[in-house]
Amino acid sequence: MIDYAHQEQWTNGFGNQQSPIHIQTSSTAAKTGPLPVTIQSAYRLNQEIDDQTTIRLTGQGQADIFSRPFSFQQVHFHAPAEHVIDGHQTPFEIHLVHQNEIGQLVVVALLVEIGTADQPCQRIIDNYAVGKTTATQLQIDQWLPQQPAGFHYLGSLTTPPLVEGVEWLVVTNPAVTIDSSQLDWFKQHFAPNNRQPQSLAGRKVESYQ
Amino acid sequence: MIDYAHQEQWTNGFGNQQSPIHIQTSSTAAKTGPLPVTIQSAYRLNQEIDDQTTIRLTGQGQADIFSRPFSFQQVHFHAPAEHVIDGHQTPFEIHLVHQNEIGQLVVVALLVEIGTADQPCQRIIDNYAVGKTTATQLQIDQWLPQQPAGFHYLGSLTTPPLVEGVEWLVVTNPAVTIDSSQLDWFKQHFAPNNRQPQSLAGRKVESYQ
Repeated sequence: MIDYAHQEQWTNGFGNQQSPIHIQTSSTAAKTGPLPVTIQSAYRLNQEIDDQTTIRLTGQGQADIFSRPFSFQQVHFHAPAEHVIDGHQTPFEIHLVHQNEIGQLVVVALLVEIGTADQPCQRIIDNYAVGKTTATQLQIDQWLPQQPAGFHYLGSLTTPPLVEGVEWLVVTNPAVTIDSSQLDWFKQHFAPNNRQPQSLAGRKVESYQ
Repeated sequence: MIDYAHQEQWTNGFGNQQSPIHIQTSSTAAKTGPLPVTIQSAYRLNQEIDDQTTIRLTGQGQADIFSRPFSFQQVHFHAPAEHVIDGHQTPFEIHLVHQNEIGQLVVVALLVEIGTADQPCQRIIDNYAVGKTTATQLQIDQWLPQQPAGFHYLGSLTTPPLVEGVEWLVVTNPAVTIDSSQLDWFKQHFAPNNRQPQSLAGRKVESYQ
């Protein structure tokens, strides 16, 4: 089980392009248009896994990300958020993990605020079984907004083995909120599972607003 | 100085997606069309560096690679080749190193056979000064063929620190050959500087022919 209380002891043999990061919008490079991620085939989840530190759901889907085809592979949750924007940390962050045919990884991170309850999240909560992997049927591509705004940078997985070369799209206007009772449920079932922001170490962050 | 004679002792903290590789064409995934690399702005070299184990030249240029903009950064040489195709190792391999705005690396590798002498290579030879960095003015984008055929996979730098997350386009029909006297010159000035092929470890290699 991943020990977030002693995360400074995690083994990182990889270097200095780690995730998450604290993004200072004043230091980003402004780009034109929304983040180029377009769903080509619905994101459907069929398996819900109690990962001990979070819930992970696997499924299928297809997207074009920066004009290249990627397969959606799994989604999982962090509370509170891992990415921080200008000092603001949302209470919840959703990671949509994608891979292409040669194995390149892209994570689309949704920074989720408190608002109206989300129906797929509620079904995930209702379907949860401690220590178990359960079948489910859910569609979640509606979480991505039509015009995703946010940030683009090169980082790593945020859990061991902390592999680098991972491309991040951090979406600040997702089409999903959760309500406080859904957030409370996650906090009651999982300890805080956010890795601390890592040094930017000279990396450039692009801003799509 | 990089010690190729004891390369098994190089520190690799990165994992099992290393380069170069031995490509078995019968195990590749066939894709349609040529390798999608298109030069948008000429590759011009302005500095020639004696790297002790090879010659490296830095410069500028722009290309679209898999529909994304990349800047050409530097070119260097390996003799014999690092990538092996169906047991065949060419005597020479040229690495064109590219980076995009967020720092993703793409290397376009040209597998070079013996044939007619190459003029830019001759100017690099004539301009070489032991242990020195010298100014030069050269254009090399003509080395890329109009319809590049070859392979696409995810790997690493082939010299320490052996960073992974590097995208490789291995071109088997480059528009450049060198003659035997040019090859002999490289062999006289540099010890063999090819890293041995690394385990594929389940990676998929795409073929564009």
